Amino acid sequence: MQIEIQRNADVSLSKQIYQSIVDRIRSGLLQEGLQLPSVRILSKQLGVSLVTAVKAYQQLEQDGFITSVQGKGTFVKVKRKAVEERKEEIFSYDWQLSVQDYLPRSQFGRFHLVPEKINLSSSMVDPGLLPNRYLEREIHQMLSENPRILSQYGEIQGDTHLRKEMAEYLKSSGVPSTPENILVTSGSQQGIDLVARTFVGPGDVVVMEAPTYPGAIDVFRGRGATILTVPVDKDGMRIDILQNLCDKHKPKIIYTIPTFHNPTGAVMTLKRRRQILDIAQSIQSLIIEDDPWNEIYFGKKPPAPIKSIDHNGHVIYLRGLSKTLAPGCRIGILSASGSVFNRLLAAKANTDLGSPLLTQKSILPFINSKRMMDHHKKLRTALRIRRDLVLELLSQHMPDGVSWVIPEGGLNLWISLPSWLDGNHVLIEAKKQQLTFLPGSACYPVEQENHHLRVSYSYMNEQLLHQGVTTLCNILHSQITSKTVHDCSPYF
Amino acid sequence: MQIEIQRNADVSLSKQIYQSIVDRIRSGLLQEGLQLPSVRILSKQLGVSLVTAVKAYQQLEQDGFITSVQGKGTFVKVKRKAVEERKEEIFSYDWQLSVQDYLPRSQFGRFHLVPEKINLSSSMVDPGLLPNRYLEREIHQMLSENPRILSQYGEIQGDTHLRKEMAEYLKSSGVPSTPENILVTSGSQQGIDLVARTFVGPGDVVVMEAPTYPGAIDVFRGRGATILTVPVDKDGMRIDILQNLCDKHKPKIIYTIPTFHNPTGAVMTLKRRRQILDIAQSIQSLIIEDDPWNEIYFGKKPPAPIKSIDHNGHVIYLRGLSKTLAPGCRIGILSASGSVFNRLLAAKANTDLGSPLLTQKSILPFINSKRMMDHHKKLRTALRIRRDLVLELLSQHMPDGVSWVIPEGGLNLWISLPSWLDGNHVLIEAKKQQLTFLPGSACYPVEQENHHLRVSYSYMNEQLLHQGVTTLCNILHSQITSKTVHDCSPYF
Repeated sequence: MQIEIQRNADVSLSKQIYQSIVDRIRSGLLQEGLQLPSVRILSKQLGVSLVTAVKAYQQLEQDGFITSVQGKGTFVKVKRKAVEERKEEIFSYDWQLSVQDYLPRSQFGRFHLVPEKINLSSSMVDPGLLPNRYLEREIHQMLSENPRILSQYGEIQGDTHLRKEMAEYLKSSGVPSTPENILVTSGSQQGIDLVARTFVGPGDVVVMEAPTYPGAIDVFRGRGATILTVPVDKDGMRIDILQNLCDKHKPKIIYTIPTFHNPTGAVMTLKRRRQILDIAQSIQSLIIEDDPWNEIYFGKKPPAPIKSIDHNGHVIYLRGLSKTLAPGCRIGILSASGSVFNRLLAAKANTDLGSPLLTQKSILPFINSKRMMDHHKKLRTALRIRRDLVLELLSQHMPDGVSWVIPEGGLNLWISLPSWLDGNHVLIEAKKQQLTFLPGSACYPVEQENHHLRVSYSYMNEQLLHQGVTTLCNILHSQITSKTVHDCSPYF
Repeated sequence: MQIEIQRNADVSLSKQIYQSIVDRIRSGLLQEGLQLPSVRILSKQLGVSLVTAVKAYQQLEQDGFITSVQGKGTFVKVKRKAVEERKEEIFSYDWQLSVQDYLPRSQFGRFHLVPEKINLSSSMVDPGLLPNRYLEREIHQMLSENPRILSQYGEIQGDTHLRKEMAEYLKSSGVPSTPENILVTSGSQQGIDLVARTFVGPGDVVVMEAPTYPGAIDVFRGRGATILTVPVDKDGMRIDILQNLCDKHKPKIIYTIPTFHNPTGAVMTLKRRRQILDIAQSIQSLIIEDDPWNEIYFGKKPPAPIKSIDHNGHVIYLRGLSKTLAPGCRIGILSASGSVFNRLLAAKANTDLGSPLLTQKSILPFINSKRMMDHHKKLRTALRIRRDLVLELLSQHMPDGVSWVIPEGGLNLWISLPSWLDGNHVLIEAKKQQLTFLPGSACYPVEQENHHLRVSYSYMNEQLLHQGVTTLCNILHSQITSKTVHDCSPYF
């Protein structure tokens, strides 16, 4: 078991050890029943005092993550009879536990696709709202005209035609682009990963919003980054706090979702967009601008991306392409300039030699077409109706003490519970009723807040959405009125 | 510019510095005209003696990679008028040069897709030999029956049906598999990358064959691994040397291509397959068995994969799926067991949340079908004809002093020149005649041998193959008979 600690971080060492173990348990990387090193061995391994190690283990035990057995040792707490059920054959793999890995956290994958009937966890668009039939016909025509698309590799940088169309399209949203500075990625997740693997190494400082997109946390933690966080208010990242952090730590990367922030829905003001760029310029940092929901606005159009005012190549701009169109194709784009771009392209070659040509060609006819504009317009209307439904249900049924932010775009709604109520507990109850959502704790890179939930209103149809939100309100109602802090384990 | 040196490696520090700079130049990561740090600064940065730094720079200058200008400094050598042509706007990105990266090498991408008319560089199959029309009809039928494939994410681990078919198919080649221990990747390149990012960190020892697949070198170098190499003879990796290395260094990973080794074509004997597994078990190492050409044999079937005799989860088995079928889909699979598998799955989530569903479903009807068996049979015949053509031309036209290995399968042929002749020089001449191949130097992880070439006979039709090989023979003929060592720069 490898635990990374950052001696220059603002968080105490015992809290870092606690968090590292919680992250590994929640990511399924430390399995139930597994024996942990003794406090003595741990303190020696990490070069920390015995007191620090003891403090971390005490908190873990108190919070129900681990359990100590007199004379036997400390173990990851078993909730089901998992160990007894363990098949005999598995024991022949036990030697593998001594193989150290570099994977401290992988939480997002566990909430990305979930089997529950009412899925408010996945930030995805209801397939019924997507132009499947149209794309199917286009793909048929394309492949019957040119079946060799199936038998050829695309360029590592991405299909030229797609990059051309994408450059035109980005220009229309105010982002100056040429086909030469666009890189096609396998979704935005890969875009974040490419930047991290190229520019972030152990101890490099990365600034993130808190809360933020959990998939990005997983990636930066995997590179051993020192993550510092800046809170988000209704106008986006708190620039005053960012400025202070940057003065002190000179981060290498600032990761932000300025438009319909995930998970809070906040929109960064134009003023703050200018300020964040000024800061990045003054300390020679890179900004990752993750912009998946640019087209999904319910009121007025959001301000132009930060990338639109970036003249010196500080912003690496990420835009999902297939998410609101054809998620089965998994295409995103990255736009950057100069040697930063060249290095990201080299990293893409090392990663997978380029995204599949078939998926790129499949969405090509749609990009930048009038049909795409119309589709986005319809999508805005349909999603706005769902958001409004959720807001109405919340205001009707949610008990006192619970608050939420009204999102003006995007797919998510951020709900805050009374601070004593743990979203992970609520999730256990919800799952019993075939309902799931994203517990807010997954969205915090460093010090986790447990009393939030992210509810995505985009994936379920209105009927299931109605059922899900009502169920959620009922669960919260009964938990808050009973005011009993559950003693069950806070993870799942 | 970041240079990694490994103090425990067998290679001298000055050679490591030399190699690191050559790799970055050949990967396009250090651009022409760029100023390098002075020897004084470099020796300080790396904590090496001034003599070591001077020695590395002297060799680089002697070999034509860099140039020193009295009173000005040391620069990457300019071959074209690149610097003068540099557009003014680029200067606003100059600050980016101070952004350190973790990308020491990315050579393979530069040879993967090349614009030359006669491409003997790419290990790809001629699109004319692939079942494009059949797949096109299958895709059409699948999408018209179920267009929602376009609008859904697949499982992170990969489509269940594909994993089921693949498990059956692997069983037929002697690899015991279940759908649960198969992970679908975006090509084998991503499979290698997933293992590296999960299990390899700075200073971890990785053993590779020398020569080997350049794309794997790029990946392990990117993780800061200490790479040790074992030569390959006609029976595959030299196990006696591997045993010695392992006794001394206990590598974490052994990367091997036992069947139709890339680039030499060697096939590891069954005895050595058993020995390599014994060694891995005795030192608790992981083996990556990269097996892209299993079906492309020209004589008798190769021995069963090492994975077939692995009972304790030491082997991570990689098989390209789409390479000989539909490269436009970019699908590979990885088979592993136990916690090693679970951790690779978590890494896949962090990387890209799963490969696209469309490409997975597109090849599904073909996998494990009678049609696939027939296709592979035809492919073997067609590629054998091309290999024979090349062998015939080589024995007719190749000058004395050049030798080659007859491959019994796979797509590549390994040619060795007189040791004074640099394959990179030959490539410069070849490109003038619209011909390209892979210079052997790209295939060496540590100490590069420059007097080899890899020629792929699978991508060009017979006419162009004829033209290309004849041209190559002529170039070598004139270079060897003139016996003039060219004074042009050895890179490109």
